[in-house]
Amino acid sequence: MRCFVTGGAGFIGSAFVDRLLADGHAVTAYDNFSTGQREFLEGAARQAGFTLVEGDVLDGRRLTEAMAGHDLVLHLAANADVRFGLEHPRRDLDQNTIATFNVLEAMRATGARRIGFASTGSVYGEPTVFPTPESCPFPAQTSLYGASKLAGEGLIAAYCSGYGFQGSVFRFVSILGERYTHGHVFDFYKKLLADPRHVEVLGDGRQRKSYLHVQDCVDAVLSAMGKGADGFDVFNLGVDDYCTVDQSVRGLGWKPRLGIKESVIRTLEYLQANRWVMERR
Amino acid sequence: MRCFVTGGAGFIGSAFVDRLLADGHAVTAYDNFSTGQREFLEGAARQAGFTLVEGDVLDGRRLTEAMAGHDLVLHLAANADVRFGLEHPRRDLDQNTIATFNVLEAMRATGARRIGFASTGSVYGEPTVFPTPESCPFPAQTSLYGASKLAGEGLIAAYCSGYGFQGSVFRFVSILGERYTHGHVFDFYKKLLADPRHVEVLGDGRQRKSYLHVQDCVDAVLSAMGKGADGFDVFNLGVDDYCTVDQSVRGLGWKPRLGIKESVIRTLEYLQANRWVMERR
Repeated sequence: MRCFVTGGAGFIGSAFVDRLLADGHAVTAYDNFSTGQREFLEGAARQAGFTLVEGDVLDGRRLTEAMAGHDLVLHLAANADVRFGLEHPRRDLDQNTIATFNVLEAMRATGARRIGFASTGSVYGEPTVFPTPESCPFPAQTSLYGASKLAGEGLIAAYCSGYGFQGSVFRFVSILGERYTHGHVFDFYKKLLADPRHVEVLGDGRQRKSYLHVQDCVDAVLSAMGKGADGFDVFNLGVDDYCTVDQSVRGLGWKPRLGIKESVIRTLEYLQANRWVMERR
Repeated sequence: MRCFVTGGAGFIGSAFVDRLLADGHAVTAYDNFSTGQREFLEGAARQAGFTLVEGDVLDGRRLTEAMAGHDLVLHLAANADVRFGLEHPRRDLDQNTIATFNVLEAMRATGARRIGFASTGSVYGEPTVFPTPESCPFPAQTSLYGASKLAGEGLIAAYCSGYGFQGSVFRFVSILGERYTHGHVFDFYKKLLADPRHVEVLGDGRQRKSYLHVQDCVDAVLSAMGKGADGFDVFNLGVDDYCTVDQSVRGLGWKPRLGIKESVIRTLEYLQANRWVMERR
């Protein structure tokens, strides 16, 4: 297969690039390096089947040229930070909704018909049922980030219905692991490095949160997409330690290999060994 | 109250303009006249409290200038035609999603905090439950139109949550009545005028569809918004002849006055008396 990964130089994107190359596919990473890191693609760059295109998903023309000849698109490029939406409301609209439209239009122009999309559990707003099922009552959005991702999901569903695309939407929880570059664990570790005696915790510290290791995320997504489902599907991605659980992906035979504790430990080991990741941001 | 009506020269928008003026409010209609008609505002133009601004909702600067000093925004400007989405996929994104973002940003800049939004029952995709409740399971989008309106709803919900806006989303069924300018009844009437002996019916003619008279639509929306609910609410608008039914608006004491048959008859009487509407399109 010829795979096209938007945000391919990012924490999660580069994990997909490596795995797809290891599985023998040709892979193009498309990234504007706004948060992606060239170092994350050093291994990929040594392989014959790999192509890197530096470009922005908001540049529809460049995106379309780069996508020509691919079968499968993993659309991971995004503003992935749920914070700061209220300070920059246009950012989520541009980078998550309009960017997804551009990816779909590039697919339509080039003939690619299979898309996997990194959405978010944030589309559930403030859910009242845990674990939250994919079919839970129509939620009200509580963040611009969630709203912009839900809009992206809706576009993909409409393209599947109208143009015969095959779409798989994955509602991610927080992902941890090697190359992790932002989020709670990152922030805590950075603060503890600066002052090992104190760490500030927002709220009462009892907030519940689910994490998934990045390799389990890659497994789940490729396993779900490999089943060749027609049309449009939505999957929650998480572990059952807490929060949202993907019962559907489990129905396909997938189970996470790492629990939350192991994911946190592996992430911290990575950050410890790769201080440059923390210094660059 | 000072009310700002986007799409104020349209079929539904002009009905709101007339009613709000009759109720003693100051009203600004904002319209680009792409489908709006100057004739629909002839009565309004004779009243002191009325202002007309010719402008496009995609022109954020003009929109913001025009909105200054208003309390309530009724956002009705849209690509209201569910057809042709697949021929012009960018149209729904621009005119329904990005336009709604522009309206919200103009509100944020001018201090307006109360918004009513014309959404659509199409966000339910292919519902499996009739009448479809507002809280039905999270549906998959089946049209670019529905997807673009759902994206608008999500943006409004996020602005309510993040900036303290008050938002009321109304999922409209097809609306009929005076000044009706497009849709099935319009198309049938036009075809019958051209050839009274034959009329082409798509499908087997047994498709179920709900219609609401425009004056009942105005009643329902203003009744729901007048209850001064805080935060974010979603209402289905329809009659119980068929399809979606607004049980929530009924909970607020609203009932439609006209059934579907009466709405169709009134619409045909209007078209018969106003041939110019049909000739212009």
